[in-house]
Amino acid sequence: MNYKMIIYTLGWILLFESAFMMVPAITALIYAEFHSLAAFLISAGACLAVGALMSVRKPKNRTLRSRDGFVIVSLSWIVLSAFGAIPFMLTGVTNSYIDALFETASGFTTTGATIFSDVEILPNAVIMWRSFTHWVGGMGILVFIMAFLPLSGGTNMYIMRAESPGPTVSKPVPKIKTTAMLLYVVYIVLTVLEFVLLVCGKMPVFYAINTAFSTAGTGGFGFYNSSMGSFSPYIQIVITVFMALFAINFSSYFFLLRGKIKEAFTSEIKTFLVILGASSLLIALNIRSMYGSFGESMRHSFFSVSSIMSTTGFATENFDMWPAFSQTLIVLVMIIGACAGSTGGGIKVSRIIVMWKLIRREMSTALHPKQVKKISMDGQIIERDVVRSIYGFFFCYILLFVISMVILAIDGNDLITNFTSVAATIGNVGPGLAKVGPIGNYGFFSPLSKLMLTFNMLAGRLELYPMLLLFVPSTWKKR
Amino acid sequence: MNYKMIIYTLGWILLFESAFMMVPAITALIYAEFHSLAAFLISAGACLAVGALMSVRKPKNRTLRSRDGFVIVSLSWIVLSAFGAIPFMLTGVTNSYIDALFETASGFTTTGATIFSDVEILPNAVIMWRSFTHWVGGMGILVFIMAFLPLSGGTNMYIMRAESPGPTVSKPVPKIKTTAMLLYVVYIVLTVLEFVLLVCGKMPVFYAINTAFSTAGTGGFGFYNSSMGSFSPYIQIVITVFMALFAINFSSYFFLLRGKIKEAFTSEIKTFLVILGASSLLIALNIRSMYGSFGESMRHSFFSVSSIMSTTGFATENFDMWPAFSQTLIVLVMIIGACAGSTGGGIKVSRIIVMWKLIRREMSTALHPKQVKKISMDGQIIERDVVRSIYGFFFCYILLFVISMVILAIDGNDLITNFTSVAATIGNVGPGLAKVGPIGNYGFFSPLSKLMLTFNMLAGRLELYPMLLLFVPSTWKKR
Repeated sequence: MNYKMIIYTLGWILLFESAFMMVPAITALIYAEFHSLAAFLISAGACLAVGALMSVRKPKNRTLRSRDGFVIVSLSWIVLSAFGAIPFMLTGVTNSYIDALFETASGFTTTGATIFSDVEILPNAVIMWRSFTHWVGGMGILVFIMAFLPLSGGTNMYIMRAESPGPTVSKPVPKIKTTAMLLYVVYIVLTVLEFVLLVCGKMPVFYAINTAFSTAGTGGFGFYNSSMGSFSPYIQIVITVFMALFAINFSSYFFLLRGKIKEAFTSEIKTFLVILGASSLLIALNIRSMYGSFGESMRHSFFSVSSIMSTTGFATENFDMWPAFSQTLIVLVMIIGACAGSTGGGIKVSRIIVMWKLIRREMSTALHPKQVKKISMDGQIIERDVVRSIYGFFFCYILLFVISMVILAIDGNDLITNFTSVAATIGNVGPGLAKVGPIGNYGFFSPLSKLMLTFNMLAGRLELYPMLLLFVPSTWKKR
Repeated sequence: MNYKMIIYTLGWILLFESAFMMVPAITALIYAEFHSLAAFLISAGACLAVGALMSVRKPKNRTLRSRDGFVIVSLSWIVLSAFGAIPFMLTGVTNSYIDALFETASGFTTTGATIFSDVEILPNAVIMWRSFTHWVGGMGILVFIMAFLPLSGGTNMYIMRAESPGPTVSKPVPKIKTTAMLLYVVYIVLTVLEFVLLVCGKMPVFYAINTAFSTAGTGGFGFYNSSMGSFSPYIQIVITVFMALFAINFSSYFFLLRGKIKEAFTSEIKTFLVILGASSLLIALNIRSMYGSFGESMRHSFFSVSSIMSTTGFATENFDMWPAFSQTLIVLVMIIGACAGSTGGGIKVSRIIVMWKLIRREMSTALHPKQVKKISMDGQIIERDVVRSIYGFFFCYILLFVISMVILAIDGNDLITNFTSVAATIGNVGPGLAKVGPIGNYGFFSPLSKLMLTFNMLAGRLELYPMLLLFVPSTWKKR
């Protein structure tokens, strides 16, 4: 374990975090929220001081092994959340550090699960910090840092691989820096585009910025207790479309820009769109009688499915009141989640496709035991180690789910609250059903449950392994 | 596809079923239930006639391929349930054939989920038929038939493999007939032993027979609406212990008889006992305040966990009223289920162990990517095809679960009812939570949902593949 290198990297994380805090600080200045301004400046100062101390000496040995990469990734996100929680304490919006930590982790992991029962009383600077953490967290903070600060040639690969969402079906791209830059361009362009379209729909500029940040990261923190329920159908539709756009593998946009339409529509994206469309339609039919017209029920259904499947978590309607059939589909798309290589969470559509292909192969093997069959996706053969990492992921997911269910059950809340809380945190979605439904929040959980769910959000954002490996003794063993 | 051979085997199934029906017929005679007697005799006659017609000509080509084996197994169980349902119609205890089919499949698959809201008004002959289907279904009807009727030398293997519970970690035993016979000896001896112990506890003989049949098959059909709640602590403890005994791999009893204590306690059995003991203890502590003494809460907790984990489904208390923590553990052990090679259902403890070992291997591979590691259990290396069949099973399980959840959701019942109904039918458990809790029943579901759950019971009993393969086109394709 290269501890010096780990400390050095974490130092840089904190330096960047202090820079991030300038965004809410400026917001505080604009809205003359001087108490918040002080809170963010002090927090930024703390990050700067600790960060500088940790990164002052560049280590000589910059070699990173696979396990160093995992540890750097998980600790970076923990440190980011731990220090990002300070402003929530200093602004006085909460007295509980665990709550502040939960909220910050929820922000950076783009979950959007909140402990606040009333977000309308929060200062604008805090609102901005919440949305901005989504935007920063969306594309992966380490990838971002490495684009500016190449730590050590080839071994960055481990970090990028550990932090990027989805299974690595295709070979990783050799030029990290270029790729990261291109991804950021797409990310920024789409964010700006959404902002402009929202402002065109007469959403106030401050809210449009926050909504764009929150959508881009597929986060879901809002500024109204009714989430997006009070906005016009036009604005709701813009958000619906952008939530779906940010849930699509970003590399598809490169292909689209280069005119390669066929390559852009991978089987993952097709499947994503089919599930999105079919679920929206079925739910619209199921809730038809609750709304004035089919158009209205379709709008709410499409918004909700796009929000939940992209793992954003905005709401226009309280889908906790919808019939069981709609709720079942909501929970299903929540667990499935977005496409790999997007800012969305969940199991990822590509893993579901591979799972389906493995089922078909096993069926076929049962019928014809001597047959040997390879499976492929978009013309690429899925190698054995990818299959292993995918069933490994599913098993880890189940394990984490079960442990969480047992821990949460100690609080004595109903099983639907517990089940959907776990699914919504591992999947970085935000709202679930029952007590954690669109009009609910996570404030009522015990500190232990909140820590468990915070762990789940981090684990989910980092595709489970980095966080789980912290508990494997051999991660920490000397060779 | 060797259709002649399939028809011939199904014919024999029906001949045996007509013999099975003599048991309730004799019961009807003893209790002077002449209406039921007629019903069972007519049903037996129908089985005899159709069976004789189908098995009159022995096919020349008796070769069975793998897929023939699967189709024979799944169709046998369907035919068995379809004809076994007739007496429920003729005795007049239900007017719905789908209900009768559900009840019969629930019996043969040893699920014990009932559509009757009041079992105390059922004729004794019907009570006996329900328990007896559990006893027959417990050890696998085809294994039973093959022990008496060797259809075709080596290819019987496919049938036995498709019908026996659990993953085949160890090599299949060459001498099917001997093995089957030995298993039946254990089965019968344990059943008789339980019967004797129950009668010693002053349980009426008729009830003791039914309870012993129902426990042996880990079924769970009872004769009181309060299940086993009205019996003495002694009787409840006897049942608790026997439910656990029937959930243990039967081959362990051979080892025990031969004095090989170490071989008898495989890692699966140890894990089973640890989960059983730990869950019982945790639940007993959780429900402590609801009962007069720790002993009493321990008795109910141990009974419930043993009942649910062995997938029997008897109850002494309505655990649907227990706190969320206990309910969560109940649902977990329901999904885990019993040991492979027992009469119990569920995912099976051995699969959970392999899952855990695969998680550990993937973790280790993530840390040390170049390492190649084999996993083993009880000193035997788990080969790649077993690993494949295990993750295949998990994926099929998830797929079937999801499809069932969506179908059941159409009825509009709450998600806990739906979730536990699906878990309790795929796992051949019986009761779940909410509407299908220990004092509930499955009568309220729509016909479509009942068919789905019937399918689940059969699929669960046959370890998913045989039933799912019926829907794979290439099963039916000519070579």
